[in-house]
Amino acid sequence: MKLFRTLISLEAALKIVLAHAKQAEKEAVNFDDSFSRILAEDIRSPIDSPPFDRAAMDGYAIRGENSFGATPNNTALLKRKEVSGQEKEVEIGDGEYLPIQTGMPVPKGSNAVVMLEYTKESGNKLEIFKPVTPGKNVSFQGEDVKKGEIVLKEGRLLRGHDIGMLASLFKTRVKVYKRMKVGIISTGDELSDPKNSHEAGRKIADVNSYVLEAWLKKLASPYRVGILKDDYEAIKKGITTSLEDCDGLLISGGSSVGKRDFLAEVVEDLGELLFHGVAIRPGEPTGFGIINNKPVFVLPGYPVATISAFEMLVKPFLYAVHGVREDRKQIFAVVSKKIPSSVGRSDFVRVKLFCSEGEYYVEPLRVSGSGILSSMTKSDGFVIIEENKEGIEEGERIGINVWDW
Amino acid sequence: MKLFRTLISLEAALKIVLAHAKQAEKEAVNFDDSFSRILAEDIRSPIDSPPFDRAAMDGYAIRGENSFGATPNNTALLKRKEVSGQEKEVEIGDGEYLPIQTGMPVPKGSNAVVMLEYTKESGNKLEIFKPVTPGKNVSFQGEDVKKGEIVLKEGRLLRGHDIGMLASLFKTRVKVYKRMKVGIISTGDELSDPKNSHEAGRKIADVNSYVLEAWLKKLASPYRVGILKDDYEAIKKGITTSLEDCDGLLISGGSSVGKRDFLAEVVEDLGELLFHGVAIRPGEPTGFGIINNKPVFVLPGYPVATISAFEMLVKPFLYAVHGVREDRKQIFAVVSKKIPSSVGRSDFVRVKLFCSEGEYYVEPLRVSGSGILSSMTKSDGFVIIEENKEGIEEGERIGINVWDW
Repeated sequence: MKLFRTLISLEAALKIVLAHAKQAEKEAVNFDDSFSRILAEDIRSPIDSPPFDRAAMDGYAIRGENSFGATPNNTALLKRKEVSGQEKEVEIGDGEYLPIQTGMPVPKGSNAVVMLEYTKESGNKLEIFKPVTPGKNVSFQGEDVKKGEIVLKEGRLLRGHDIGMLASLFKTRVKVYKRMKVGIISTGDELSDPKNSHEAGRKIADVNSYVLEAWLKKLASPYRVGILKDDYEAIKKGITTSLEDCDGLLISGGSSVGKRDFLAEVVEDLGELLFHGVAIRPGEPTGFGIINNKPVFVLPGYPVATISAFEMLVKPFLYAVHGVREDRKQIFAVVSKKIPSSVGRSDFVRVKLFCSEGEYYVEPLRVSGSGILSSMTKSDGFVIIEENKEGIEEGERIGINVWDW
Repeated sequence: MKLFRTLISLEAALKIVLAHAKQAEKEAVNFDDSFSRILAEDIRSPIDSPPFDRAAMDGYAIRGENSFGATPNNTALLKRKEVSGQEKEVEIGDGEYLPIQTGMPVPKGSNAVVMLEYTKESGNKLEIFKPVTPGKNVSFQGEDVKKGEIVLKEGRLLRGHDIGMLASLFKTRVKVYKRMKVGIISTGDELSDPKNSHEAGRKIADVNSYVLEAWLKKLASPYRVGILKDDYEAIKKGITTSLEDCDGLLISGGSSVGKRDFLAEVVEDLGELLFHGVAIRPGEPTGFGIINNKPVFVLPGYPVATISAFEMLVKPFLYAVHGVREDRKQIFAVVSKKIPSSVGRSDFVRVKLFCSEGEYYVEPLRVSGSGILSSMTKSDGFVIIEENKEGIEEGERIGINVWDW
């Protein structure tokens, strides 16, 4: 059994965790159910978009050249094309026009649409007050997307406009990565479900399972099992049962080297414990193992320590499983108050951002322990200080991970 | 009727829109259903957190002073406090210790916890190899949050760690702003629902209602009504019926000055059209009115124009309605290729970001029309160029709105 006393580096832990991140299966969903999912196929356009040259404005289809030089005092005068309704395809000749509405195909022979505002139609004559260049107010076939072109790449987080792109291509069904069903267990005799409000002030609320559930909602399919007592057999049974139903587990609490340090032992007992103890702060007593081919994270009892381990190890794991290929953009900021850190461990530092004249400034939140949840709620985001760094000096510029919107 | 020919400024339009943004009602939900909602009350802590001085590590509760000077070769030796189990409250004396687990109250008389790793217990004696200062490994009562302190302010977007804070306070129910039910209607004879995949290449897909639906999912409660034909009476009936069921409407399509310019007329007919035509590009033919005391946005037919109007007018409206008090953080970037823009209108420019050595660089996406959806999917975010600016020169530093995660 890998004892917690021997801490491994964050880098080494990440390597192990990612080596066991099996890519999730793909599933087909309706395109309008794919919002916020991760795309599992390249989307190529089956059609040109627009599918034909079409009017981008309401107005009159003309040859742009016929409007050259037009002014309110010296209008261009065009004649309405006579259409019997029998024609297979209408074609506009020199000096002719036809009314057209936004989105409609522009008739052959025309190359521009003059907006209603700049015209006056009387009978079958059109006066134009302002010239339009050829191509004006026309969206040309394939201008947006060409047939066969990749418009959305596999691994993309699907946003609102991506849903729009799928719609525009009549791409009714789309493959996305299946969401991993992740069981969440809290352990500890001292814990009580926060819904038992009468326990306030007498017991410690189970914070971890609710935080983990909320965060997993964005990427995976969370399943909150609940609180287990600090009892070896109860925990063993809880893990076994949950794994029948879930693709992986996050278990928190009791993962330090104490009398109740069952979690790591149970994981070792049921499968293989790959590490236990990582040089991160907070979050040292984090472990990871495999039971029945399924990943099991052993997370610390303290909420902020669990959050730290989640951001540093669980999230990269989930991104890998769900095929996320995009990097989240950090905000760069100038350190305005030294961020202290010790060499030999990676620090999860909650920070506050200030903005002044096009520049961000960052300072660490004063924190006296890993249990300090208010260090999260008062922060704008976090920064991870690498193991080999002895803090970050005032004036340095660093990348900040800002909380989601 | 306010004719579209008279464009009002974005600033003036925003002022009108926000003047009609009635704050949503409050509703109480379970704390674990409040993720991603907007908090509608100040949360004060009903208790000190932690509720008592508690151990932050597994180990032994001692008086820190008793460990001073301890080394592996010169250990401090302590005696286990004898406990009968009958005591109301255990108190530790000088030179005494008691085993303690994470989260448990530290006994009276002790002020520190020495970790198991630095000790050896045999019988009722404890050898300590390393000194701990008083206060070490103890979380003190009220250290995280003091009773009565505001921990989460009204208007806050509730994130994962906020849910954790609510849990830690046993705050079972929490007030959030009710999500506005927003009906979404697309209009246009040329439109077909993208689920009719056999229409691909022959009809124009209804993109707008799906994009709007996806974006509204994050903040409001969207209700997609569907596509209405360009028919005055049909649209009138559609709006009337939808408003019976919804708190507001987004109607897109046919809002330019054309033969099919029914939407603005119908709004004027059924209620009051407050403006129609805004100096924004794309998105000029955007309108806003009130019918039966309910807000109705008239949005352009072209998807990117609708997106532009959504970002500039609808989103600020929805933020106001739902009580959002937080500003989204922009990313600052140096313009690496001039962003052109015309004086007299606010431009919605899709941009691409590049990162190099702690600095972002930004350039506009080449765009030839408002119908170019790929200008959205290829972008990292957008910037709004103010009406009075003639573009932004290379080398200037500007704020970018990056797409959500």
